[in-house]
Amino acid sequence: MLSTTFKITKPTYMRKYVTEFIGTFFLVLVVALTGNALAIGAVLMVMVFAGGHISGAHYNPAVTLAVLIRGKVSSTNAIIYIAVQIIAAAVAALIARWYVGDLSVMTLELDGRILKAFVSELLGTFALAYVVLNVATSKGTTGNSFYGLAIGFTVFAMASTFGSISGGAFNPAVAIGATIIEAFAFKNI
Amino acid sequence: MLSTTFKITKPTYMRKYVTEFIGTFFLVLVVALTGNALAIGAVLMVMVFAGGHISGAHYNPAVTLAVLIRGKVSSTNAIIYIAVQIIAAAVAALIARWYVGDLSVMTLELDGRILKAFVSELLGTFALAYVVLNVATSKGTTGNSFYGLAIGFTVFAMASTFGSISGGAFNPAVAIGATIIEAFAFKNI
Amino acid sequence: MLSTTFKITKPTYMRKYVTEFIGTFFLVLVVALTGNALAIGAVLMVMVFAGGHISGAHYNPAVTLAVLIRGKVSSTNAIIYIAVQIIAAAVAALIARWYVGDLSVMTLELDGRILKAFVSELLGTFALAYVVLNVATSKGTTGNSFYGLAIGFTVFAMASTFGSISGGAFNPAVAIGATIIEAFAFKNI
Amino acid sequence: MLSTTFKITKPTYMRKYVTEFIGTFFLVLVVALTGNALAIGAVLMVMVFAGGHISGAHYNPAVTLAVLIRGKVSSTNAIIYIAVQIIAAAVAALIARWYVGDLSVMTLELDGRILKAFVSELLGTFALAYVVLNVATSKGTTGNSFYGLAIGFTVFAMASTFGSISGGAFNPAVAIGATIIEAFAFKNI
Repeated sequence: MLSTTFKITKPTYMRKYVTEFIGTFFLVLVVALTGNALAIGAVLMVMVFAGGHISGAHYNPAVTLAVLIRGKVSSTNAIIYIAVQIIAAAVAALIARWYVGDLSVMTLELDGRILKAFVSELLGTFALAYVVLNVATSKGTTGNSFYGLAIGFTVFAMASTFGSISGGAFNPAVAIGATIIEAFAFKNI
Repeated sequence: MLSTTFKITKPTYMRKYVTEFIGTFFLVLVVALTGNALAIGAVLMVMVFAGGHISGAHYNPAVTLAVLIRGKVSSTNAIIYIAVQIIAAAVAALIARWYVGDLSVMTLELDGRILKAFVSELLGTFALAYVVLNVATSKGTTGNSFYGLAIGFTVFAMASTFGSISGGAFNPAVAIGATIIEAFAFKNI
Repeated sequence: MLSTTFKITKPTYMRKYVTEFIGTFFLVLVVALTGNALAIGAVLMVMVFAGGHISGAHYNPAVTLAVLIRGKVSSTNAIIYIAVQIIAAAVAALIARWYVGDLSVMTLELDGRILKAFVSELLGTFALAYVVLNVATSKGTTGNSFYGLAIGFTVFAMASTFGSISGGAFNPAVAIGATIIEAFAFKNI
Repeated sequence: MLSTTFKITKPTYMRKYVTEFIGTFFLVLVVALTGNALAIGAVLMVMVFAGGHISGAHYNPAVTLAVLIRGKVSSTNAIIYIAVQIIAAAVAALIARWYVGDLSVMTLELDGRILKAFVSELLGTFALAYVVLNVATSKGTTGNSFYGLAIGFTVFAMASTFGSISGGAFNPAVAIGATIIEAFAFKNI
């Protein structure tokens, strides 16, 4: 599918995008099907360990934004990463919908707690970006074997703390992916 | 038991097969006796950490197949590995049967959910093979200390997500081992 | 905000204090909002992995004291660390109070079990200091990738064992932070 | 307390024995007070990470025996290690008794299941010795950062599988320590 002129450089980038797709897909699938903080932390951990050396293992538009601000990813790549993450999340949401019928576990029920949910998302996303930048992009921790463990269990800890207040995913791709699928489902009625 | 002419090279291969036997045996034993996703992930993790440097720590015909396609194991060794894994699974199933009387926890009850169970096995097995190839056979992650953690917790995450839909083991040796033992038990009636 | 004359050296120290603030803040927040031993162990683990190379990742006056006795932190820095930890704990307690209304989960109910609670805190704090000194300041374990895992899960194990007897935090900043906030709240009545 | 002539070499050995004491003490304390497989696995993991570079972190007569057979510890040291482990277990049992009144959680109730309990202990102890020898004494895994994780979670997995059938500790020091304390308690009646 790739023209001959791109053969030398493109496959490397394509591998990064495929890696972002696979990691985000499995992360959102586990979020949608289980809502289980430990399973979510574990799937993020293993996907970070598996894909970190290829794409940087963001799997999350908020993480891509943090890494962009830190200057460790180009803005072009950042845009493609976020697009791929949203598509992967939508595909995962579609499959999750096929499994369970609807995606209510992914829907935020905010009623009178909007401010608390907002602060929860803010704190959880800050913790995640802070840990990612320190364990995966800092010179002080180069060559460590714990980056996936640290990143995965940040989401576990934050989801355990804020899971009942906000959606607990700290990942805009989850909400966007679910919304796209629900919107399409609505259209078909 | 080994003739003198094989003394120099054979023990190395024999050690690989013994390692595959031990790892698969304990993995299937924990699957059969607990059905507990965290215990299953943990036993796989520790057996991968213990045997990875000897046999590659497959403990699963699907993993051996993936590593064969990647070209990191010879086809002769792949066949012996799979045979050893099935024998180890059958022995574990036999002992599990002695403990609990029957192996119903290992039996898939698929009734009307065959397609969902099939997709679950497909997704879980893909995730496992993908993580194994990336953390245990890739140059980008050489010398890491997390391969066992990543592989074990992939099965934990997938079993937490799909455990109630499929058998959740993502390991053909589990089903084959149980089937052999049940078939023999049936014969004896 | 820093004058030009301090530009060269101060930011390094300031980074240490900010790191201690962030780590202690999230640790106390999870203690106050969940009381869940696994979530507490996990947040400590990830904050140690994220901040260990910057500040040493104490997040606890008892740990700072142990590291001071070992001679791995100056007494000036130790005093500032402890002050920062208490402020961070108070801010976390304030936010936790906003979330849940009161901080009863953080209050020790000692009634007739004062001696047992004291021995529990003594044993848990000893275990924590012992593990920190061995995995984070010892030459024998230099360059390891497990220090955060070891430290975080020491608190998990000790909180699982003594959580129902003492407050289970093994961290004076937790109690001091909560007390400050409760005292201010009392004043306002 | 040490005479001048032993000053140069003895402290090193004394440090090993103190390390074995501390590790076994906390392990048995958590076994006796919680009976929680995850807390037991965690405390063993952290004590192995903390003491592995000093004493080898056996904390278990069965492990010391396995390491002795492998030739990685002298027989004199092995005897002292086992003696220290039993004393540490007895002290932990004494403190556990003070906390909970009696040590029934540590007592094996074998009634008609003696053979199953025996096979369980055999399998669990074999798995533990096998993992310890491979991750902590083998050249193929030298310098790894996962030995504590592998050893601790072997006990977690085995205790999750066999915990309800045998005592689940796979550590003779636990039973011996408890028995000594119960025997003394009986004498005092």
